[in-house]
Order: sequence, then structure tokens, then C-alpha cells
Amino acid sequence: MRGIDLTEPASPATAPVGNVASSPVRDLLALTAHPEVISFAGGLPAAESFDLDGWRAAFSRALSSDAGRSCLQYGLTEGNLQLRELLAERMTGRGLITEADGVVVTTGSQQALALVATTLLSPGAVVLVEQPTYLAALQCFAMQGARVVPVAGDDDGVDPGALEDAIIRERPAMLYLVPTFANPTGRTLSTARRLAIADVAAAHHLWIVEDDPYGELRYRGTPLPPLAATGSAAGAHTIYLGSLSKICAPGLRLGWLRAPASIRSALVIAKQAGDLHTSAIDQAAAAAYLAHSDLDEHVRRLCKMYHPRRDAMIAALPEATPEGTRWTDPDGGMFVWVRLPGDVDTAAVLPFALRKDVAFVPGAPFYAGDPNRSTLRLSFTTYGPEQITEGMSRLGAVLRQLPTRP
Amino acid sequence: MRGIDLTEPASPATAPVGNVASSPVRDLLALTAHPEVISFAGGLPAAESFDLDGWRAAFSRALSSDAGRSCLQYGLTEGNLQLRELLAERMTGRGLITEADGVVVTTGSQQALALVATTLLSPGAVVLVEQPTYLAALQCFAMQGARVVPVAGDDDGVDPGALEDAIIRERPAMLYLVPTFANPTGRTLSTARRLAIADVAAAHHLWIVEDDPYGELRYRGTPLPPLAATGSAAGAHTIYLGSLSKICAPGLRLGWLRAPASIRSALVIAKQAGDLHTSAIDQAAAAAYLAHSDLDEHVRRLCKMYHPRRDAMIAALPEATPEGTRWTDPDGGMFVWVRLPGDVDTAAVLPFALRKDVAFVPGAPFYAGDPNRSTLRLSFTTYGPEQITEGMSRLGAVLRQLPTRP
Repeated sequence: MRGIDLTEPASPATAPVGNVASSPVRDLLALTAHPEVISFAGGLPAAESFDLDGWRAAFSRALSSDAGRSCLQYGLTEGNLQLRELLAERMTGRGLITEADGVVVTTGSQQALALVATTLLSPGAVVLVEQPTYLAALQCFAMQGARVVPVAGDDDGVDPGALEDAIIRERPAMLYLVPTFANPTGRTLSTARRLAIADVAAAHHLWIVEDDPYGELRYRGTPLPPLAATGSAAGAHTIYLGSLSKICAPGLRLGWLRAPASIRSALVIAKQAGDLHTSAIDQAAAAAYLAHSDLDEHVRRLCKMYHPRRDAMIAALPEATPEGTRWTDPDGGMFVWVRLPGDVDTAAVLPFALRKDVAFVPGAPFYAGDPNRSTLRLSFTTYGPEQITEGMSRLGAVLRQLPTRP
Repeated sequence: MRGIDLTEPASPATAPVGNVASSPVRDLLALTAHPEVISFAGGLPAAESFDLDGWRAAFSRALSSDAGRSCLQYGLTEGNLQLRELLAERMTGRGLITEADGVVVTTGSQQALALVATTLLSPGAVVLVEQPTYLAALQCFAMQGARVVPVAGDDDGVDPGALEDAIIRERPAMLYLVPTFANPTGRTLSTARRLAIADVAAAHHLWIVEDDPYGELRYRGTPLPPLAATGSAAGAHTIYLGSLSKICAPGLRLGWLRAPASIRSALVIAKQAGDLHTSAIDQAAAAAYLAHSDLDEHVRRLCKMYHPRRDAMIAALPEATPEGTRWTDPDGGMFVWVRLPGDVDTAAVLPFALRKDVAFVPGAPFYAGDPNRSTLRLSFTTYGPEQITEGMSRLGAVLRQLPTRP
């Protein structure tokens, strides 16, 4: 199939060389280069949403002044101070009171995740996760030789009682969560759960890693406070990961972490060894962009663009899937999570979908341990509503052909 | 001392949190923000050498066309294809025949080093190094829990006989070398040694990691072939690390690795987990720069700028140091390595130097195992010859006061 074997995506649990395993999501990205394929796989923001003029101006500004020369030089590992101030201001505005000193700029939030894994996890350490969870996080944990243990939950997210049991039983090093519009499920942890989870974790001095790349992409309902701003301990044991990838542009590779002082210096040392610092030019351009463009207005435009795309996908699902299929109904973010009826393996279905020029990600690699192979992830942000409808119709032609369980 | 404790730089052998230790070189960089300090510590390229106009044009070009939108999107982990082609062409021109497929773009060559360490080293694995060697490489190896074993050598670099003995005795996972204008010594591995080392390593199927950020900065003598192009196996077991930091601008954080196919996919998977990919915008700008600017001419200008700086530092050393001091006499690169007579600890001398507004890096952290504490590293690229002479005079006022061994 176009030279890429997609029939058997590597699971993060199986490591072909050393402690590393490939990502089927990343491998699938190669497919999106074929214009005939409608790919619901990659989790790509809409390219037409990018503020190309704004970013061209921001880079020009960063490289124009006398300061231009300094952003070509080595910089501090923690990041550009102006950018850290602007990010801290932005987090504070969203209810998470933050000072510039508390922020470390990273090469995408993927790097923040890798730094947290390097710093908190030694081989054999236990990481608690929701099930299913972000694939590339599972890969990071596997590369550190950690043991990943899922915590039971439901449509409101991880169950606080089950979390406390797991903490006592497993003595974990950290709890990893995408509390808002999770990848891959699109689910959001309810306010009551946030409070309960923050308090349970604080009582046991457990590190929470709150991964929040999608939180600003809300299409309905009321914004919830970040987990890092929740509970009596108010984030004293929470490392918050932010990103410009979904609200500005992923090609920038600009993310950040907000961490208590007790762990921050260790994270900075890990970053020194990892890449010394993030591109000083991109950081200066981002500072110029945040200072001179209206990112809030841009995010409002993004939400206006993505909301009907979400609706188009949800509207197409009943027709495109066999009876008994279930799916999530996200209030924001980028993903819908689908569970087919019966014991079908969606990895085996994918080649048939690709023959119809449509792609998705099979669900198994998002599981720690025993996967539900009848699941799949669909992203609704890359295409307009018409193309989504067309892609879902192609997908339906495959899924409706599946033999139903006798 | 300005709020930074420089009297006791952390050694990479001592890890304060987890497997991570701070870098005194990076901590010292903070000092260079004080304009009154002449810092020979940081290893910073001359800011006035940066081609600010060329880079502004390159970013504008990258973000101007229709392609601009694609460089704001997610990209391939291996890197921008046009950039990889241009880098392969450049390496081929320097005698290291390379195809674009063989190149992976990294977030600075520091990341390339971290990826190599992640991929080749498990806890307890042995890394062979020259002594002293690049500090941040030692940190990378320490973070993987590797054991670093120095190989005996002399002014021509590592001794091939000692290398073979160490391979048989230690069963190492890799040999790490900066063969040309090494950090911190400025030494260059002779042609005869290159051949012998390449052959010894090939005979034992040992991975060589050739770190070459300085190779193009030659001020006298004839260019030598990269180790990766040397010997009968011609790099079949060599991972070559390149960088734009020293010949263009470090703020870009653009490096690359050239690796045989047998190891490349594992390195790419480690990079996926590390940061997904390097800034797509910086990569597109670098491709535009390499395609439209004359980098060879820029490197010639750099060499013309740095050569008299090297000479000014070498000329000042006899006057600035006590009798019996020895130093290297590099043909290129950025560094001179100095050994003071007697049993002085240069880390204890540094605070006195800082009181005179001059800085250097104490030598101890560049050693694997037992350090020679009477050593220090001086960088000659940051300032013009007059300021170098002034800085060396300040340093002399401190070093000439040192008590000589009774």
C-alpha cells in the first residue's frame, strides 16, 4: 500500500530496537502527502487556519531589530524571557496564576513530555494513565523503561476511588492525564472529578502531569479550570504542559512546561542535555506574535472553523458505521473515538479503507496493556465539512461491509 | 558572585536529581549578559559574524510562498527533504559522499548526541572517549547511566593501540570523538590515526560517533577527511554529527546526523519521542539560505575573522600565565586548552577571575573520571583581538598571582 505497511502498526509495548518503538500515527502522516487521501488519521490542524501573514511579520520583526543578532546566538535553556512572560500572562488569564520564572519553553510539548519522563521515571517506575491515552506519551514512558498502569474510569474520565487504590497498590511515580478534550477520546474530566483527583494526588504527594494542548479549542459549554489550578494544594505537585501547535502552528515546535520550583531545575538540566535550548529565532518570533497579534481572536476564529467540522463528523457517524457502534461526543479538541461492535480488529480494516482513499488510526496503540482492537480514532480538524462528509461516506463503504458478529 | 555560585561547578559524574547534572558551561553563559565581563568561557560564535540580512531574507522566503503554509504544519521526523538534500550535497563536497536519505535533521547537534545516547546506550553500557572531552556529551552519557572510559592518547589524539586494548577489555557500545579541533582541547586527530582508528573500530564492529561542529573552521593547514569517510569500511559503523551552529548561527538549533541505514530508523524513532521533528520553519529557512546564499564564502569570512583572534590569544598566553604553563596550539575551531603548573584548582581560581571581569571554564568537568584540576578552557571566537588581549591581561593579573608549588 504505497510502500508503507500499515496493516500492523507497531504497538508501543513492542520495542524493535533498544527501548524505542515506531508510531503508527507518525507513519500515517506520510500518507497525507497524497492529495487523493482524506486522512482522519494525523491530527493535523487546518493548514488554511494558519496566520501566515502574522507569522511572516513576527519573524521579520524578530530578525529586524538589533535584537535580531541576539536571537541568532545561543540562549538560555529556560527560554526567551519575553516569551515566558507572555505565556505566563496567558495562563494567568485562563485561571492558572503563573510567573515567567515558572515557565520553561520546550521544543513542542512533546519535548516537555520527554523531559518529564526522563526526570521522573527510572526503569521499572510506574506511570498511571487514563485508558486509552496519548500514544506518543506511552512511547516516551516505554523508552524510559517505565511500567504503565491504566486507572479505571468512565465518560467523565478517571475514577478518583480507583486512582487512590492504584496509588496505594502501585506506588506510582506520576499520573499522566489529558484532562480536556483528551487524545484520543475527546473526553473531558468533569469539575467534580478534577477536584477529587487533585486532592487524592496531593494527599499522596503524587506528581500529576497535565497535558493540555487542546484546552482552548472549546466549541460548546463552559471552560473548566486547569487541574494545576484545582484543589487545596493548587498544583503544588502538578506539571502543566502547554503548546502553540494547535492554537498557532505545529511547524513552530513551540511548547512549554509550568512546574513547581522543586522539580524545575531537574527538568532544565534534562533539557540542556536534550537540545541546549529551543530555537531562539522561533521563540523571539512567538514573543513578537503574542505581543502584536490578537491570539484570542485567532482562537475564536479557529473554534468557529472547527465546530461545524466536529458536527459534520458526528452527523455522518450513524450512516457510516454498523449498528451497535459507539462514539464520543466531544465538546472541543480534535478527536472522536469510535468503538465498532463485535470483535473486529480495526488494524485489519485500515488497508481496505486506504484502498478507498480514506484513513484513520486503529485504536490498539493508544492502550496500555490489553487493547480493545475494535476502536479507532478520527480527527475532524484537517478538512472542511464537505470533505469530512465525503471521507465519512468512503469510510462507511468499508465499515458497513464488515461482517457482523453471528 | 552575581547570584550564581561558580565556585563549585557540578561534575557530570555527580547527578543531583535522577540521572541529570548541571553544566557549568551553561551556567556561565548567564554571565555573558554582563557587558563588563570578557568571557572566554561560553564558546559563543562572534555575534557580529551572523548574516542577519541573509537569514531575514531566508525566513521571509520560507514564509512567503505557498510553501509557507506547509512549513507551519507538522513535518516528517527525518526533516525537510530539500534541506537534507542540500546538507548531503555539502557533506559530499567535503569528501563524505552522502545521500539525502542518509541524513536526519536534529534540533542542534546536541539533540543528535542525545538521540545516539538514547539509542546505543543502556544503563551500564561503556562509552569510550578521548580525555578530556566535550562536557555536554559526558552529561548525555551519564543521563543514560552509561560508564565512560577514557582511552589514552597524546597531542595527535586517541592512540589506536590503546583503543584496541580498551575495546577488548571493556566491550564498549561506542567510541565518541571530536576528531577535528576538539572541544575542549582544540586538538585534531592526525590522518594516520584516523585510518588506524577507523580500521580498529571496523574490525571490532564498534560504533564510532564523530562529532564535527568545528571542522570547517580551519585557519591553517590542509583539511582532513572526516573519520566517517576513512578506512576500508568507510563509515559503515560511523554516525557523523554536523551542525549549522558554528558556521551559521547557534540560535537556529539546526544540526544533523548521517547514519547507516542499520541504525537510522532507531534514531528516527527516538527523535519522534523526543520532539516529533525539528522546527519546520527553521528548516525551510535553512534550505532557502543554503540554496540562495554563499555559505562557503561566509565560512571563508568567518575563518578570516577568527584566525587573528586565535593568534591574539596564543600570543597573550606566555605573558598571562605562570612559568611552566602549557597550552594547545589549534589549527582551527574555537578553543585553547591550558594546563597550569603545580596542583592549583582552576575552579577555585574562577571567582578571582570574575572579580577582574574575565571568565573561563575550569577543566575538571571535561574529564571522565579523575580530572586534572589545573586545566582550563579558553574560547577565542567571541571577541576581537583587542578585547582578547585586554581579557588575557585581566586573566594574567589573576594567574600570575597564583602561589607556585614550593
